[in-house]
Amino acid sequence: MTRQFVVRPIGRVESVLRTRDEAPRQPDEGAPSAWLAFDESVRDALRDLAVGDEILVITWFDRADRDVLTVHPRGDRTRPETGVFSTRSPDRPNPLGLHRVTIIGSADLRLQVDHLEALDETPVVDVKPVLGDIAER
Amino acid sequence: MTRQFVVRPIGRVESVLRTRDEAPRQPDEGAPSAWLAFDESVRDALRDLAVGDEILVITWFDRADRDVLTVHPRGDRTRPETGVFSTRSPDRPNPLGLHRVTIIGSADLRLQVDHLEALDETPVVDVKPVLGDIAER
Repeated sequence: MTRQFVVRPIGRVESVLRTRDEAPRQPDEGAPSAWLAFDESVRDALRDLAVGDEILVITWFDRADRDVLTVHPRGDRTRPETGVFSTRSPDRPNPLGLHRVTIIGSADLRLQVDHLEALDETPVVDVKPVLGDIAER
Repeated sequence: MTRQFVVRPIGRVESVLRTRDEAPRQPDEGAPSAWLAFDESVRDALRDLAVGDEILVITWFDRADRDVLTVHPRGDRTRPETGVFSTRSPDRPNPLGLHRVTIIGSADLRLQVDHLEALDETPVVDVKPVLGDIAER
Protein backbone atom coordinates (compact mmCIF):
# COMPACT_ATOMS: atom_id res chain seq x y z
CA MET A 1 0.00 0.00 0.00
CA THR A 2 1.39 3.36 -0.95
CA ARG A 3 0.82 6.15 1.51
CA GLN A 4 -0.15 9.53 0.19
CA PHE A 5 0.18 12.98 1.68
CA VAL A 6 -1.83 16.15 1.31
CA VAL A 7 -0.10 19.37 0.29
CA ARG A 8 -1.92 22.44 1.55
CA PRO A 9 -0.84 25.56 -0.36
CA ILE A 10 0.44 28.40 1.82
CA GLY A 11 -0.12 31.06 -0.83
CA ARG A 12 -0.09 31.70 -4.54
CA VAL A 13 1.93 33.35 -7.29
CA GLU A 14 0.82 36.62 -8.87
CA SER A 15 2.57 36.89 -12.23
CA VAL A 16 2.11 38.36 -15.68
CA LEU A 17 2.75 34.85 -17.02
CA ARG A 18 -0.66 33.39 -17.80
CA THR A 19 0.00 30.43 -20.07
CA ARG A 20 2.73 27.85 -20.47
CA ASP A 21 3.52 29.24 -23.93
CA GLU A 22 4.53 32.50 -22.29
CA ALA A 23 6.77 30.89 -19.67
CA PRO A 24 10.52 30.66 -20.23
CA ARG A 25 11.77 27.09 -20.51
CA GLN A 26 14.86 27.73 -18.42
CA PRO A 27 15.47 30.41 -15.80
CA ASP A 28 18.38 31.86 -17.77
CA GLU A 29 15.92 32.78 -20.49
CA GLY A 30 14.54 35.48 -18.24
CA ALA A 31 11.45 35.16 -16.08
CA PRO A 32 9.63 38.27 -14.87
CA SER A 33 9.43 39.42 -11.28
CA ALA A 34 6.37 38.25 -9.40
CA TRP A 35 4.55 38.57 -6.10
CA LEU A 36 3.91 35.79 -3.64
CA ALA A 37 0.62 36.28 -1.77
CA PHE A 38 0.50 34.23 1.43
CA ASP A 39 -2.37 32.97 3.54
CA GLU A 40 -3.06 34.55 6.89
CA SER A 41 -2.51 31.12 8.47
CA VAL A 42 1.27 31.26 7.86
CA ARG A 43 1.87 34.85 9.01
CA ASP A 44 4.16 33.79 11.87
CA ALA A 45 6.23 31.50 9.64
CA LEU A 46 6.99 34.47 7.34
CA ARG A 47 7.95 37.00 9.94
CA ASP A 48 11.75 36.86 9.55
CA LEU A 49 11.86 37.19 5.77
CA ALA A 50 12.99 40.58 4.47
CA VAL A 51 13.92 42.46 1.33
CA GLY A 52 17.36 41.35 0.17
CA ASP A 53 17.02 37.78 1.42
CA GLU A 54 17.75 35.02 -1.05
CA ILE A 55 15.19 32.26 -0.68
CA LEU A 56 14.05 29.00 -2.22
CA VAL A 57 10.40 28.98 -3.17
CA ILE A 58 8.71 25.63 -3.74
CA THR A 59 5.61 25.72 -5.91
CA TRP A 60 3.10 23.13 -7.10
CA PHE A 61 2.72 23.24 -10.87
CA ASP A 62 -1.01 22.67 -10.84
CA ARG A 63 -1.31 22.66 -14.63
CA ALA A 64 1.36 19.98 -15.14
CA ASP A 65 0.86 16.48 -16.54
CA ARG A 66 1.75 14.06 -13.74
CA ASP A 67 1.82 11.01 -16.01
CA VAL A 68 4.89 12.20 -17.92
CA LEU A 69 8.07 10.20 -17.21
CA THR A 70 10.26 11.24 -20.16
CA VAL A 71 10.53 14.49 -22.13
CA HIS A 72 12.46 16.01 -25.00
CA PRO A 73 14.97 18.39 -23.36
CA ARG A 74 13.86 22.03 -23.72
CA GLY A 75 10.94 20.76 -25.80
CA ASP A 76 13.29 20.10 -28.72
CA ARG A 77 11.83 17.08 -30.52
CA THR A 78 15.10 16.48 -32.38
CA ARG A 79 16.76 15.55 -29.08
CA PRO A 80 16.26 12.13 -27.49
CA GLU A 81 13.80 11.80 -24.65
CA THR A 82 15.24 12.09 -21.15
CA GLY A 83 13.90 10.77 -17.86
CA VAL A 84 12.13 13.65 -16.11
CA PHE A 85 14.22 13.25 -12.94
CA SER A 86 17.17 14.48 -15.04
CA THR A 87 15.21 17.55 -16.16
CA ARG A 88 13.40 20.53 -14.67
CA SER A 89 10.24 19.84 -16.66
CA PRO A 90 7.08 20.83 -14.75
CA ASP A 91 5.52 17.63 -16.09
CA ARG A 92 6.56 14.94 -13.56
CA PRO A 93 4.92 12.64 -10.99
CA ASN A 94 4.92 15.26 -8.20
CA PRO A 95 4.98 18.62 -10.02
CA LEU A 96 7.05 20.57 -7.52
CA GLY A 97 8.78 23.70 -8.77
CA LEU A 98 12.00 24.88 -7.13
CA HIS A 99 12.91 28.55 -7.56
CA ARG A 100 15.94 30.35 -6.15
CA VAL A 101 15.02 34.03 -5.96
CA THR A 102 15.76 37.26 -4.12
CA ILE A 103 13.11 39.21 -2.22
CA ILE A 104 12.86 42.71 -3.73
CA GLY A 105 9.69 44.01 -2.09
CA SER A 106 7.27 43.27 0.69
CA ALA A 107 3.82 44.20 1.94
CA ASP A 108 1.40 42.64 4.38
CA LEU A 109 1.50 38.87 3.76
CA ARG A 110 3.15 39.51 0.38
CA LEU A 111 6.68 39.24 -0.97
CA GLN A 112 7.94 40.41 -4.34
CA VAL A 113 10.69 38.30 -5.90
CA ASP A 114 13.09 39.22 -8.67
CA HIS A 115 12.13 36.51 -11.17
CA LEU A 116 9.88 33.51 -11.11
CA GLU A 117 9.22 30.95 -13.81
CA ALA A 118 5.75 30.03 -12.59
CA LEU A 119 2.35 30.93 -13.96
CA ASP A 120 -0.12 33.29 -12.33
CA GLU A 121 -2.13 31.53 -9.60
CA THR A 122 0.45 28.75 -9.16
CA PRO A 123 0.19 27.47 -5.56
CA VAL A 124 3.16 28.15 -3.27
CA VAL A 125 3.85 25.27 -0.88
CA ASP A 126 7.08 26.14 0.99
CA VAL A 127 9.79 28.76 1.44
CA LYS A 128 13.30 27.95 2.68
CA PRO A 129 16.40 30.07 3.27
CA VAL A 130 19.47 29.83 1.05
CA LEU A 131 22.23 28.91 3.48
CA GLY A 132 25.49 30.01 1.92
CA ASP A 133 27.57 27.19 0.48
CA ILE A 134 25.18 24.55 1.64
CA ALA A 135 22.34 26.36 -0.04
CA GLU A 136 20.45 23.33 -1.18
CA ARG A 137 21.02 20.81 1.52
CA MET B 1 -11.84 27.59 -0.55
CA THR B 2 -8.29 26.33 -0.47
CA ARG B 3 -7.37 23.69 -2.97
CA GLN B 4 -5.26 20.80 -1.84
CA PHE B 5 -3.03 18.43 -3.76
CA VAL B 6 -2.00 14.84 -3.23
CA VAL B 7 1.67 13.92 -3.09
CA ARG B 8 2.30 10.36 -4.16
CA PRO B 9 5.73 9.15 -3.00
CA ILE B 10 7.98 7.82 -5.75
CA GLY B 11 10.19 5.85 -3.36
CA ARG B 12 11.68 5.86 0.11
CA VAL B 13 14.91 6.44 1.99
CA GLU B 14 16.91 3.55 3.42
CA SER B 15 19.15 4.97 6.14
CA VAL B 16 20.83 4.00 9.40
CA LEU B 17 19.12 7.06 10.92
CA ARG B 18 16.05 5.77 12.74
CA THR B 19 15.00 8.58 15.08
CA ARG B 20 15.09 12.35 15.02
CA ASP B 21 17.51 12.33 17.94
CA GLU B 22 20.06 10.59 15.73
CA ALA B 23 19.66 12.98 12.81
CA PRO B 24 22.11 15.86 12.37
CA ARG B 25 20.50 19.26 12.74
CA GLN B 26 22.39 20.74 9.83
CA PRO B 27 23.94 19.01 6.84
CA ASP B 28 27.41 20.27 7.74
CA GLU B 29 27.20 18.22 10.91
CA GLY B 30 27.63 15.08 8.85
CA ALA B 31 24.79 12.89 7.63
CA PRO B 32 25.47 9.28 6.62
CA SER B 33 25.18 7.93 3.10
CA ALA B 34 21.84 6.39 2.26
CA TRP B 35 19.99 4.50 -0.44
CA LEU B 36 16.93 5.72 -2.31
CA ALA B 37 14.62 2.84 -3.27
CA PHE B 38 12.24 3.82 -6.06
CA ASP B 39 8.91 2.45 -7.15
CA GLU B 40 8.66 0.49 -10.38
CA SER B 41 6.17 3.08 -11.62
CA VAL B 42 8.92 5.71 -12.07
CA ARG B 43 11.52 3.50 -13.75
CA ASP B 44 11.52 5.53 -16.97
CA ALA B 45 11.87 8.84 -15.12
CA LEU B 46 15.09 7.56 -13.48
CA ARG B 47 16.80 6.18 -16.52
CA ASP B 48 19.29 8.99 -17.16
CA LEU B 49 20.61 9.28 -13.59
CA ALA B 50 24.10 7.84 -13.06
CA VAL B 51 26.88 7.55 -10.52
CA GLY B 52 28.66 10.89 -10.19
CA ASP B 53 25.58 12.99 -10.88
CA GLU B 54 24.78 15.72 -8.40
CA ILE B 55 21.05 15.82 -7.74
CA LEU B 56 18.43 17.46 -5.59
CA VAL B 57 16.27 15.00 -3.71
CA ILE B 58 12.96 16.21 -2.33
CA THR B 59 11.57 14.20 0.57
CA TRP B 60 8.41 14.39 2.67
CA PHE B 61 9.25 14.48 6.39
CA ASP B 62 6.38 12.24 7.41
CA ARG B 63 7.22 12.48 11.13
CA ALA B 64 7.20 16.29 11.21
CA ASP B 65 4.78 18.55 13.07
CA ARG B 66 2.90 20.54 10.43
CA ASP B 67 1.40 22.98 12.93
CA VAL B 68 4.77 24.55 13.79
CA LEU B 69 5.26 28.12 12.50
CA THR B 70 8.22 29.28 14.62
CA VAL B 71 11.21 27.41 16.05
CA HIS B 72 14.30 28.05 18.12
CA PRO B 73 17.21 27.96 15.60
CA ARG B 74 19.15 24.67 15.86
CA GLY B 75 16.87 23.74 18.75
CA ASP B 76 18.72 26.20 21.01
CA ARG B 77 16.11 27.49 23.45
CA THR B 78 18.31 30.44 24.43
CA ARG B 79 17.87 31.87 20.93
CA PRO B 80 14.72 33.74 19.92
CA GLU B 81 12.12 31.89 17.89
CA THR B 82 12.34 32.30 14.14
CA GLY B 83 9.66 31.89 11.49
CA VAL B 84 10.07 28.43 9.95
CA PHE B 85 10.31 29.82 6.41
CA SER B 86 13.66 31.29 7.49
CA THR B 87 14.86 27.88 8.74
CA ARG B 88 15.37 24.34 7.46
CA SER B 89 13.34 22.83 10.29
CA PRO B 90 11.46 19.69 9.19
CA ASP B 91 8.54 20.99 11.26
CA ARG B 92 6.65 23.30 8.88
CA PRO B 93 3.27 23.46 7.12
CA ASN B 94 4.35 21.32 4.16
CA PRO B 95 7.26 19.23 5.49
CA LEU B 96 9.31 19.02 2.31
CA GLY B 97 12.99 18.19 2.68
CA LEU B 98 15.51 19.44 0.11
CA HIS B 99 18.80 17.58 -0.15
CA ARG B 100 21.68 18.30 -2.51
CA VAL B 101 23.61 15.05 -2.87
CA THR B 102 25.89 13.10 -5.20
CA ILE B 103 25.01 9.66 -6.54
CA ILE B 104 27.72 7.19 -5.43
CA GLY B 105 26.11 3.87 -6.28
CA SER B 106 23.25 2.36 -8.20
CA ALA B 107 21.32 -0.86 -8.57
CA ASP B 108 17.96 -1.77 -10.08
CA LEU B 109 15.53 1.01 -9.09
CA ARG B 110 17.98 2.11 -6.38
CA LEU B 111 20.46 4.95 -6.01
CA GLN B 112 23.03 5.41 -3.25
CA VAL B 113 23.78 9.01 -2.27
CA ASP B 114 26.74 10.36 -0.36
CA HIS B 115 24.88 11.86 2.59
CA LEU B 116 21.26 12.36 3.49
CA GLU B 117 19.76 14.00 6.56
CA ALA B 118 16.50 12.06 6.42
CA LEU B 119 15.27 9.18 8.55
CA ASP B 120 14.88 5.61 7.38
CA GLU B 121 11.60 5.11 5.49
CA THR B 122 11.19 8.83 4.72
CA PRO B 123 9.15 9.12 1.51
CA VAL B 124 10.95 10.49 -1.57
CA VAL B 125 8.74 12.71 -3.72
CA ASP B 126 10.97 14.17 -6.47
CA VAL B 127 14.48 14.20 -7.94
CA LYS B 128 15.86 17.09 -9.96
CA PRO B 129 19.23 17.73 -11.61
CA VAL B 130 21.68 20.31 -10.30
CA LEU B 131 22.20 22.61 -13.24
CA GLY B 132 25.54 24.31 -12.78
CA ASP B 133 25.34 27.90 -11.67
CA ILE B 134 21.60 27.94 -11.83
CA ALA B 135 21.46 24.84 -9.68
CA GLU B 136 18.45 25.76 -7.69
CA ARG B 137 16.27 27.63 -10.05
